[in-house]
Amino acid sequence: MNGSIDPHHGRLFIMGGAAGPGLLARFVELAGGAAARIVVIATASAEPDAAAAAHAAQMSGAGSVRALRIVTRADANAPGVEPVLRAATGVFFTGGDQERITSVIGGTATDSLLQELVSEGDLILAGTSAGAAMMSATMITGGESQRITAGSVRTGPGLEFLPGVLIDQHFGERGRLNRLLSAVARYPHELGLGIDEDTAILTEGDCFEVLGSGAVTVVDAGTATDIQVPPSGPIALAGATIHVLPAGYTFHLPGRRPVAGTPAAERERAA
Amino acid sequence: MNGSIDPHHGRLFIMGGAAGPGLLARFVELAGGAAARIVVIATASAEPDAAAAAHAAQMSGAGSVRALRIVTRADANAPGVEPVLRAATGVFFTGGDQERITSVIGGTATDSLLQELVSEGDLILAGTSAGAAMMSATMITGGESQRITAGSVRTGPGLEFLPGVLIDQHFGERGRLNRLLSAVARYPHELGLGIDEDTAILTEGDCFEVLGSGAVTVVDAGTATDIQVPPSGPIALAGATIHVLPAGYTFHLPGRRPVAGTPAAERERAA
Repeated sequence: MNGSIDPHHGRLFIMGGAAGPGLLARFVELAGGAAARIVVIATASAEPDAAAAAHAAQMSGAGSVRALRIVTRADANAPGVEPVLRAATGVFFTGGDQERITSVIGGTATDSLLQELVSEGDLILAGTSAGAAMMSATMITGGESQRITAGSVRTGPGLEFLPGVLIDQHFGERGRLNRLLSAVARYPHELGLGIDEDTAILTEGDCFEVLGSGAVTVVDAGTATDIQVPPSGPIALAGATIHVLPAGYTFHLPGRRPVAGTPAAERERAA
Repeated sequence: MNGSIDPHHGRLFIMGGAAGPGLLARFVELAGGAAARIVVIATASAEPDAAAAAHAAQMSGAGSVRALRIVTRADANAPGVEPVLRAATGVFFTGGDQERITSVIGGTATDSLLQELVSEGDLILAGTSAGAAMMSATMITGGESQRITAGSVRTGPGLEFLPGVLIDQHFGERGRLNRLLSAVARYPHELGLGIDEDTAILTEGDCFEVLGSGAVTVVDAGTATDIQVPPSGPIALAGATIHVLPAGYTFHLPGRRPVAGTPAAERERAA
């Protein structure tokens, strides 16, 4: 257990898809570099063995990288899982379909153990694309409508590693701000996070830091003074707040407040 | 001259493209219905005669509809323009390329006369798509980048019928919030208005009302506490305000403030 980590959310490394070598190297480094023992879980993928192998090949700087094959709930409850995860310093969830992750792993021994190991700071949990979406309390499961309506987004519960947020991925690349706006208009309790490709958030304590080449768009409907979500037709959302944050910015989750600089600088400022 | 209209901005009917029969009928009604004398200007179109004829055919409820062919600056300065525009109760600019409008009409007798007739309330000026973009002080002339960077949007001066705003059109349909965010991050003086297809704003005094089947997305970077626009790489924009406003909402331009209800209701509320 790493005593320097605030266990509030544990360490989560949440990527918007298409992570380049820089982000993957950073994950390996955070997991321990040459001493890292990384486990790749490709449950989201329709071809889990190929997906796991492709990701493992990109983490050559790690001490060890292995795939953990979980494609059924029986796999997720198998006794062999526990020693593999307990030995890991980093776990990486690949992309694919986020509902495969939640339906196969949700409520299983793997789910419980990951929650424990992450909250204790025993490992860093990373996910890209579908592996990012499943981190949130509420995940977007579909909807590519061009308009901002109640029906233009579908949501479902995620695995809640990062509560209070709703994560969308491939964000700029797929023009998904409309569906994120629809989602937070319906659920203004959730902070909307849109993560671009080759971009990540790294949680530390109550904050997350933005890393990578793109930006994280934060939509906060908590400030909205008027929200109307009719069963059909366009949504009204007046007075929401939007932040576009590239690398070098930190976001303070309880305060819903962005800060220029790293979490370390933010701690100094707050002290 | 219609004495009931506050001449502040004149009456502008600004459509986000692909206007359906409902919006066009509303324009005809505002121009005088059976007494309306409508002039269609298709300067933006690569095929101006066909574009003008197609739009004219959709305004059958008007007393008269005629095309005014302006494809060169000589056309825009021709003496025959003035009597046609002075007789009009409504002028309609079609879509196409907004830079054709500004380069052919900018600074000509047609430009000056339209500014006068609009500000005096002698006619209602409508535009769709490119005809909407040219209404603003600063118009977006290109840029479809998926990311929010300084280079992801190109802008140029519009004809300034509606000062202080930057209008984007086909907004939801083409996923253009990123380029609107880029533009207002660079020019936070300008309020960003993204108008969906078959959706319009109708100005009245200092306000505009939303009409049609979609929404108008308003991005106000005036509230931003931190804006960084590096020459390359992603923009930072912290603390901007976003409003998504369907039909039935009014926006007060000087206060940068949305209000549920029509401008008439807003006047009553303010009185």
